[in-house]
Order: sequence, then C-alpha cells, then structure tokens
Amino acid sequence: MTESAQQPQKNVLIVTAHPEPRSLNAALADFAAEHLRAAGHEVRTSDLYAMKWKATLDADDYPDHPADQRLHVLDAAGRATAEGRLSPDITAEQEKLLWSDAVILQFPMWWFSVPGILKGWIDRVFTYGFAHGPGMPPPYSNGGLAPRRALASVTFGAHEPSFSDRGVHGRLKDVLFPLHHGLFWFTALAPLEPFAMYDVNEAPDDRFEPAKLEYADRLDHLFTDEPIPFRTLDGGDYDHDMRLLPDVQTAATSGPDIHLRPRG
Amino acid sequence: MTESAQQPQKNVLIVTAHPEPRSLNAALADFAAEHLRAAGHEVRTSDLYAMKWKATLDADDYPDHPADQRLHVLDAAGRATAEGRLSPDITAEQEKLLWSDAVILQFPMWWFSVPGILKGWIDRVFTYGFAHGPGMPPPYSNGGLAPRRALASVTFGAHEPSFSDRGVHGRLKDVLFPLHHGLFWFTALAPLEPFAMYDVNEAPDDRFEPAKLEYADRLDHLFTDEPIPFRTLDGGDYDHDMRLLPDVQTAATSGPDIHLRPRG
Repeated sequence: MTESAQQPQKNVLIVTAHPEPRSLNAALADFAAEHLRAAGHEVRTSDLYAMKWKATLDADDYPDHPADQRLHVLDAAGRATAEGRLSPDITAEQEKLLWSDAVILQFPMWWFSVPGILKGWIDRVFTYGFAHGPGMPPPYSNGGLAPRRALASVTFGAHEPSFSDRGVHGRLKDVLFPLHHGLFWFTALAPLEPFAMYDVNEAPDDRFEPAKLEYADRLDHLFTDEPIPFRTLDGGDYDHDMRLLPDVQTAATSGPDIHLRPRG
Repeated sequence: MTESAQQPQKNVLIVTAHPEPRSLNAALADFAAEHLRAAGHEVRTSDLYAMKWKATLDADDYPDHPADQRLHVLDAAGRATAEGRLSPDITAEQEKLLWSDAVILQFPMWWFSVPGILKGWIDRVFTYGFAHGPGMPPPYSNGGLAPRRALASVTFGAHEPSFSDRGVHGRLKDVLFPLHHGLFWFTALAPLEPFAMYDVNEAPDDRFEPAKLEYADRLDHLFTDEPIPFRTLDGGDYDHDMRLLPDVQTAATSGPDIHLRPRG
C-alpha cells in the first residue's frame, strides 16, 4: 500500500460481465474496486448484467437514423457520435471511458472470447468518431483514447498449461490478440499483460485468497507496468497498405508476435 | 452447377448477424441459400436480428435453476441440457445444428470478432453436454459435433493487405483462431478456410457480382474442400496437460500455427 499511496490519484473504470452477483468475477471486481480506492484512486463500475446492458447493436442506437433508410453502421454511428445523438446508454459509457485513466474488463472466458454482453458493450460504445475515425490519429498509434491503459482480468475453467506456449487452446496472448491489439491498442488504450485465474470451476473459493494477493500486486502497478509493446502504425514499420515492411526484423517468423517491438 | 448436382443432398444451417435486412451480409446469406438449394441441398437460416435473438446468457436460459441458488454457468447449462430443460430458443438452435451437415456463420467483422448477438448465440447454444463435456469425446477430436463442417463468411471494412501475413490487424487466420479452433474445432465442427469480402464500405454493390462468383465456388466445395488441418487432442501430439509434446515438429516456432498438422 505504501507504494500505491505514492502514485497520483487516478480514475479507473471497471467493466464486469457475469450473470451471477455472487460469482468469482463479481468478487474480483469488488476486490479491485476496494483495493484501488484504498490506494487513493477513484473507481466507477459498469456491471453490465446489473445494468441490463443492451447487448445488440441496432438502429435504435442512433435515434436520428431514418427508419426507412438502409443502416450503414459505420456511417450512422459516426454521424450520431459527431452530432452528440447516440443512445444515452452509449453516451454514458463513453463519458466513463473519457473520465478514466485506466479501464479493467473483468470477465469469464467463454468460447475463447468475451461474453456476448461484453462484446455488445464493445460494439456499441467504441463508435466511429469516438474511438477511431476521420479527424482522429491513426489506429495503433498514440492517439485515439491515449494515454489510457487497459487490463483484461479473466477467469477460465481450463488449466493454465492448456493456455501456455504449447497449450492446445493457443497461447493466452494469441487468444486475446483480437482484444489486446484489435480493440485496446487499435484505439490507443495501452494494453497490459492480462490477469488470469485458471481452474475456477474447481473449488474457486479456496483459491480466492492467493489470487487476491496476486491481483493486488497487479493493481498496485496498474499505472507503472510496461504495456504490451505493440508497434505503432505510424512509427515507420508499416507500409501504406498497413503491412509490416519486409526489412523490419520480427521476434517471430509468423503470427501475432511479429507486431511486437523488439525488446531492449 | 454440374459438379454440385453430383453431390449427395446435404443440410446447411446459415446463421446471420447483421441489423440491416438490406445489408451485404443479408445479400450474401440469401445468395448462399439460393445457390445451395439450386444444388439440391436443404437450407435453414437463423437470422439472429430478425429472430430478436437474446444475446445475453443468464439464469433464464435454465428455467429449472432455483432463483435463490448461485448460478454456476457450466453446471446449470449441463444439467438443463441433460434434462432437456433448456430455454426453448436454445433447444431450437441445437436442433438446427444437429440437423445440419454444415453450418455457415455470416457476419460483419466488428472489433476483430463476431457481433455481440452472434457471440450470444455461441455462448447460449453450445452448452456443456451438447457441444462438449463429460461422456462426450475429448475436444479437438473427431467427436463432439463431427462430422459436421463450419464456414465463417465474413465482411470487412478494412483492406485485404491489412489482414495479410504481415498486415497490421494480424493474419486473418490468427484473428479468427478463437472461432476456428476454439469454437469450431473444439466441438469437432471441421473448420473450412473463411470466405472473406474486404473494403465493403466502399461501393460494395459494385463488387457484389464478382464476390458472388467467388462465393459460389466456395459453396460448391462446401463438402469437399479440405478443412483447416488442426491437430487432434487425442492423436498423440499433446501431453496430459494438453500441451504439445516437445518432440512434435511444428510449422512455426510460435503462435497458432503450431497447432496445424504438417501438410503432405
């Protein structure tokens, strides 16, 4: 706590997505909120199930969209964002994101991705004109929602080895690449290494105390840990077709790792 | 059409997820249905927006679950599946899947994944006891929902090079790894190479005719194309912790490709 108390006060948004208020996910979200507040930070929470968050993007998200006109999602979202005429539930979430210095997504891994309700939060809130789009810095740069940070805190039924480098499910970093790189880093939310809790279907209550200690350490470093070092699109490594230049040296021969900056 | 007509008649389920009935996604789904029917196949469609599909998994999915009891999703889903007491909308989709010889997911890529409503279909329909679980063959094997096939037909606002081997968004195969490997192959739906249509925000109507020709060719080979050759979990390549054995040769040094069988 001593170390945390030396950090300047920051604002943290915690987004949770589990249908059971007594779930481990809810407990982890509560623990994070308490721990961060004790360290002097401000915390707001979007408990998507409690909010009965509308998980499905549709024309109702853009109230001025004419009912008889074909819905082009990017156009309609961009226009509603520019005119301040998004559905109020979306606007409220965008305001929380703008208020925040860091966002934590707390969710159970369902079918190797976020739950549908959380995907619907992503689809509806990260609108064209808010999180990316014309007049904004390019994606994968230090523009967009920078200098904010983002942490995925994820629970798994699976065992940890199955998500390891040679685990059958794929490396956790590869499974989360669409979230870490495609959402967070695309919109310039600096992605932190995820916090993962495995085997949660087997006596999770027994394992909550050690997990809390580990999570507390991650939360204490929420604003000091080095983010995943993805390359910037405008940093000279990519061509005008957004391909990595042939002479750029990569840590891996293929796969998501080629988009990491060499360390050191 | 000659070649298609020689195929035995099969059953195809097309699941679509776009809010606009006049969208390119809807047109691709209609085209696929017509083309497959003309080739003698049976087609059923789950148009998730038209069905007002409930995108959020919750306790209502398991009507017998006691309201005062903590919801463990895996347990509750497994029990409801075993007892034939799932919410009727889920049962109807499971029956369509069991009826099908192939399933096509037609969706716009939103934030490097499926739309929320489609993620909710996956979360709710692929229950424990139906798509995986005790008494069933191991995941990533030829059990589960085998011998069915699965095809993702995806539209993108982005340009194709940005999803190429060195594209900034990641290779399409890596971005779709959670779907292809984590959902399809996990449940023994043999995953086919995706059908992709790029640049759809730029004059998509002009590009629909050539896209239809390309898609028709893919549909003609829906039951003959070689699936993505992922390894089987019970084929001797993985240890009891579900890790690839150290002496197993891999095409890549890291990343999703290590789970591919060597070709030829």
